Amino acid sequence: MHPSVILRILGALLVLFSLASLPPVFVAWLYHEPEIALFSYTFVVTLFTGLGAWLPFAHTEHELRPRDGFLITVLFWLVLSLFGSIPLLLMETPNLDFTDAFFESMSGLTTTGATVITGLEELPKSILFYRQQLQWLGGMGIIVLAVAILPMLGIGGMQLYRTEAPGPIKDRKLTPRIAETAKTLWYLYLGITTICAGCYWLAGMNLFDAICHSFSTVAIGGFSTYDASIGWFNSPLIEGIAIFFMVISGMNFALHYFAIQSRDPFYYFRDPEVQGYLAILAGVGFISVVALDMTGTYTDWEALRYGVFEVVSIATTTGYSISDFSLWPIFLPMLLFLTSFSGACAGSTGGGMKVIRILLIFKQASRELKRLIHPNAIFTVKLGRRAVPDRVGEAVWGFVSAYIFLFIIMELALLATGLDLTTAFSTVASCLNNLGPALGEASANYQSLPATAKWVLSFAMLLGRLEIFTLVVLFSPMFWRH
Amino acid sequence: MHPSVILRILGALLVLFSLASLPPVFVAWLYHEPEIALFSYTFVVTLFTGLGAWLPFAHTEHELRPRDGFLITVLFWLVLSLFGSIPLLLMETPNLDFTDAFFESMSGLTTTGATVITGLEELPKSILFYRQQLQWLGGMGIIVLAVAILPMLGIGGMQLYRTEAPGPIKDRKLTPRIAETAKTLWYLYLGITTICAGCYWLAGMNLFDAICHSFSTVAIGGFSTYDASIGWFNSPLIEGIAIFFMVISGMNFALHYFAIQSRDPFYYFRDPEVQGYLAILAGVGFISVVALDMTGTYTDWEALRYGVFEVVSIATTTGYSISDFSLWPIFLPMLLFLTSFSGACAGSTGGGMKVIRILLIFKQASRELKRLIHPNAIFTVKLGRRAVPDRVGEAVWGFVSAYIFLFIIMELALLATGLDLTTAFSTVASCLNNLGPALGEASANYQSLPATAKWVLSFAMLLGRLEIFTLVVLFSPMFWRH
Ligand SMILES: [K+]
Ligand SMILES: [K+]
Repeated sequence: MHPSVILRILGALLVLFSLASLPPVFVAWLYHEPEIALFSYTFVVTLFTGLGAWLPFAHTEHELRPRDGFLITVLFWLVLSLFGSIPLLLMETPNLDFTDAFFESMSGLTTTGATVITGLEELPKSILFYRQQLQWLGGMGIIVLAVAILPMLGIGGMQLYRTEAPGPIKDRKLTPRIAETAKTLWYLYLGITTICAGCYWLAGMNLFDAICHSFSTVAIGGFSTYDASIGWFNSPLIEGIAIFFMVISGMNFALHYFAIQSRDPFYYFRDPEVQGYLAILAGVGFISVVALDMTGTYTDWEALRYGVFEVVSIATTTGYSISDFSLWPIFLPMLLFLTSFSGACAGSTGGGMKVIRILLIFKQASRELKRLIHPNAIFTVKLGRRAVPDRVGEAVWGFVSAYIFLFIIMELALLATGLDLTTAFSTVASCLNNLGPALGEASANYQSLPATAKWVLSFAMLLGRLEIFTLVVLFSPMFWRH
Repeated sequence: MHPSVILRILGALLVLFSLASLPPVFVAWLYHEPEIALFSYTFVVTLFTGLGAWLPFAHTEHELRPRDGFLITVLFWLVLSLFGSIPLLLMETPNLDFTDAFFESMSGLTTTGATVITGLEELPKSILFYRQQLQWLGGMGIIVLAVAILPMLGIGGMQLYRTEAPGPIKDRKLTPRIAETAKTLWYLYLGITTICAGCYWLAGMNLFDAICHSFSTVAIGGFSTYDASIGWFNSPLIEGIAIFFMVISGMNFALHYFAIQSRDPFYYFRDPEVQGYLAILAGVGFISVVALDMTGTYTDWEALRYGVFEVVSIATTTGYSISDFSLWPIFLPMLLFLTSFSGACAGSTGGGMKVIRILLIFKQASRELKRLIHPNAIFTVKLGRRAVPDRVGEAVWGFVSAYIFLFIIMELALLATGLDLTTAFSTVASCLNNLGPALGEASANYQSLPATAKWVLSFAMLLGRLEIFTLVVLFSPMFWRH
């Protein structure tokens, strides 16, 4: 691919992204904050860098091959994280260095929600709004990536979804159809966010908090405007609304589209992935509530309230918190962290390996069991009524092994920086699964971790968000040949 | 399968196993120990139970199906662990309860080498000898299992070895050929053990220690006659001999057979699994020695000595120790424990998932990468010059996912008993990989763990030793149907 094409695309992207500085300018103006200057500056820098890269090549025409999708997707997230970190780097309190600003920006755009900032209550509203907006924009990007781009690239078995995406995306060129799909998804995403904000507002949040939290709920991001997260409100009603929208946002957005089109609410329950997703939430939820009650960590109603909320928050990889689960009997946080590895559904804003892959792994492992008992019989792996091609199964297994292998390597890297096992395990799991909260030294926030660890974790967030292979493929010599 | 056939086979097995009490009787006589009575009693009980089960059905003839191999193999290890625990249960000091005696016996026969006993120096020689002998017999059983039985059952991709086993085992009936193969392997195993004992003796061990340690070296067991393990001798020469025989015993015994037949020492290096095995040992060894030196844990020569020994000991899953590696910077013990997951070669006495499977997983994951770049090209996974059938790949992936899934479930179970993360992770990894040593509360031995944890860990040892599926298949309703 010609570097000129890359510059043109990234330039156009930056021009678009510069607009993201305008709402914070408006918020700063509304609350009479001096950050008007900060965000205006960011707007100008991003806009002109974008124009500088775009204009010289605005009329270059080059056909894009599917393969080019890998490079563009990775650069997309890297460049946005870089420019997204400008206001965080330049703001006065807290005074973040480049490592921290980049970490926070990457954490926002990948909807991870891990933070290096404490004292959120003291931050200017415009900065708070900006952080929430980063997650919301990241979430939008992920849905387009997952529904429109990954199926075409065939990453980790996602070719399964190739024919199911809204609109007929059957050709393998990265051309206009993506724009159509993206528009449909955009309306859907905006719609759900608006309803979510409305519910929060009716439940007692002020409008600012309602909008901010709707951003990070629907994006499965987990950033909050308070150090105590959504627990600050101490309102079971608000928690219930959060639970509802976390579960909804953890489903495939293409499925929402079809469900709305079919006007049949039972459409969801016929989807094998949704069945698996709800089964995991219910199963882990049940175990957690019973364990919290039996160990006397909470009494009955509290066990139900805190147990269900944290399970939904972590299993969907949102990362909101209403209690300090790092103080629960260690069995439970570990169970929750392990559940975040399966994560939400493919095509959602959630992280983890995705329920569909866990489902396929289980079906394939159980086929191996059957084959041992009847070595000469033929068994097919089915998803609903459709047989899953062997090649999809192989891609899923390749994905899962790469995921676990990279998890181990990064955990060892964090241990080598001197962190203890609990911290290393939980932070790498949290960032790779785009979850957010962690245990040990990072149980409050990631501030105190060594800079090396923060860079490894930023890499983990990107790896997780880009479904591993999009990024790993760039390290393969074969990719660059010819 | 008729219960009468099972009783006949297990009866015959117990009659054979009763003979294992005679060498300890001899040792007790030699050292004038009162344990003559203990082992004579064990001999009589085991012999007569065996005869009682065998004789009534001695003339029953039933064709065995390959499937029956699963049940027989599992019962084989369970029944031997049970009868093997008799002397440990009845001995006076230390006074073990049933949980501990069974754990120790299972640990011996599965060549895990995890122990609940301290003060080994004070134990009667006959008891010490008996423990070592349990490992040696277990090692023999494992080789027969791995070389002759698993390939026929096709567990976890081991059908790869079906045509490579010594002697033509091409029919799928559990009949005389196994006996032939077993005899060949028995001579080989005895030969290597004898040479190993001779080397230890020449290097300065007394004859008793030399024989005892040769048993646990060649079986990759790790039991010692001293609490300080082989470090008690504080002899670099002995350590070098141990390293050599651990590496040798971690290779496929069928490969030893072919190498000896071909009279070509380079035969080994042409085997892709041996190449991978040596590369892992060299790579992890290099990292460890450098890390030990750079962190100032040891000075140069000591870093080399302790680093190489512990890496070989843990990567092969032997579990001997010459230093307290639980005190090393946590990065290193974790690296070693993770390496024990790949473990030794298939068809050896070692544990873990086996190098061949890790190799296949890597090759398949790298094929997925290539497929992403060239979606329409066809790539074959090769091992040496042979293409690996897709079905073998699927079986390997099924194996690895079941392994990791069960590891997680058992780790959660141990956390639920109240153990901390380091202890739970390391003990489950150690027992599932048939390794032995662990960290945290089990860094000296397993005595202080709760009884529930010991039973879970006994189950883990059996699971690991029987390559997961042999045991798991028995829990499937399909197995029992018809
Ligand atoms: K999150
Ligand atoms: K061992």
